[in-house]
Amino acid sequence: MTKNQKTKKPVILITNDDSYSASGLRKLIKLMRPLGHLVVVASDQVMSGMGHAITIKTPLRMRKVADEPDYEEYVCNGTPVDCVKLGTQVVLKSKPDLLVSGINHGSNASINVIYSGTMAAVLEACIDGIPAIGYSLLDYSLNANFDHVNDFVVKIAKKVLLESLPAGVCLNVNIPAISDEMPKGIKICRQSHARWVEEFDSRLDPRGGDYHWLTGRFENDDIAEDTDQNALDDNYVSVVPVQFDMTAYQAMKTIENWNL
Amino acid sequence: MTKNQKTKKPVILITNDDSYSASGLRKLIKLMRPLGHLVVVASDQVMSGMGHAITIKTPLRMRKVADEPDYEEYVCNGTPVDCVKLGTQVVLKSKPDLLVSGINHGSNASINVIYSGTMAAVLEACIDGIPAIGYSLLDYSLNANFDHVNDFVVKIAKKVLLESLPAGVCLNVNIPAISDEMPKGIKICRQSHARWVEEFDSRLDPRGGDYHWLTGRFENDDIAEDTDQNALDDNYVSVVPVQFDMTAYQAMKTIENWNL
Repeated sequence: MTKNQKTKKPVILITNDDSYSASGLRKLIKLMRPLGHLVVVASDQVMSGMGHAITIKTPLRMRKVADEPDYEEYVCNGTPVDCVKLGTQVVLKSKPDLLVSGINHGSNASINVIYSGTMAAVLEACIDGIPAIGYSLLDYSLNANFDHVNDFVVKIAKKVLLESLPAGVCLNVNIPAISDEMPKGIKICRQSHARWVEEFDSRLDPRGGDYHWLTGRFENDDIAEDTDQNALDDNYVSVVPVQFDMTAYQAMKTIENWNL
Repeated sequence: MTKNQKTKKPVILITNDDSYSASGLRKLIKLMRPLGHLVVVASDQVMSGMGHAITIKTPLRMRKVADEPDYEEYVCNGTPVDCVKLGTQVVLKSKPDLLVSGINHGSNASINVIYSGTMAAVLEACIDGIPAIGYSLLDYSLNANFDHVNDFVVKIAKKVLLESLPAGVCLNVNIPAISDEMPKGIKICRQSHARWVEEFDSRLDPRGGDYHWLTGRFENDDIAEDTDQNALDDNYVSVVPVQFDMTAYQAMKTIENWNL
């Protein structure tokens, strides 16, 4: 534990992928404030869909924008993964007690985990041995309503600060969009095997050149009860333990039998 | 199977993350040419370290640069994942029989799989149900020598065309850099639990502003014999079956016992 030397509070690193100005980040900061000494490092641009991208072709810039008791905030030009690297290596020069990322505007359940900048930041911290949680709300709107998330977000963060997490494991938390009823509770789930079915919106520019907008439709054929998508559909908060070891152990025997 | 209607050859989609001009891509094209009808979609820019990034803020452009018997080549402004989407949705409008990505200039063994544009393209195809293989050479040089890779690359591609792959599983193939001895053979491995230890190179620009170059050192504390890193160190070609289901199943009980 690298608790703040003066206040002895746990050090919590915070980032997201919707940029420093996103209301989801502001909400997360507000909820984490009573729990520790906060260091926020967020991008000056929207980094949605950046996956686990890192910046290697251009240099990174970072500036401090807030310095209050137990609260520091930095804005940079990096991806969510860069934010974690800058936060730990340049700002803190040590490991925080917890990294939280989000609250993302939009789902990171199911296959979205693999495209998500929010979860890439969480995985990056996890690789570095830092307990880490990604929070996402199932509402893509910039003006998404986060009024119902407080208890769930804080409860899970407190638990991880208390219990830590198994080595190589981080958490992907998704919260249903606000509705007439509060979420029924929290369910521990596996990642649903769904996918995006792409449909490019292809157009002609004024000079007659064609260009393509990536769009798509979420398709979930995985109807088992133990998935995150199913929990969310049933108005539960889903928690998936996620790992960065992507080995398909169950397939090793098959490939070995090929005698390559 | 969506074999080319005229030639009845398997359709092979090819991409990479080092741009269309990389010699690793040219090598892969040359090796795949006898195996099928090739459709190449590659980026006009180097996309190393792009992870599973997709382009959603700007439109995608693509142009055909070659059209020969059983060979089409397209260049676009997208990431490796975009290249797969464009190849399947806009060019082929159907699933190819195989996707191959690479040959990457540099290792994608161990934790590199998660930062890799080469492997992101492979995972994207895998999510879409397409048998997919990523090839990487342990030599970052633009002028890397690929003379020793032929038999390994072709053997694995032929086997996957023949046997396909288990659902939700793709292959991460890494090949040692050329040396006095040929690689000893092929080993089926798990992903080594190594990581990049970051060291930012922080500098001052001519106006006195500070900026940071991301750099780093690869650190492998995972000394078990069954890892890809160990196989490569021992001059074997490593093959790791990789999956996009990132659920840490072994940790579910622990988190369930928290009674959140």
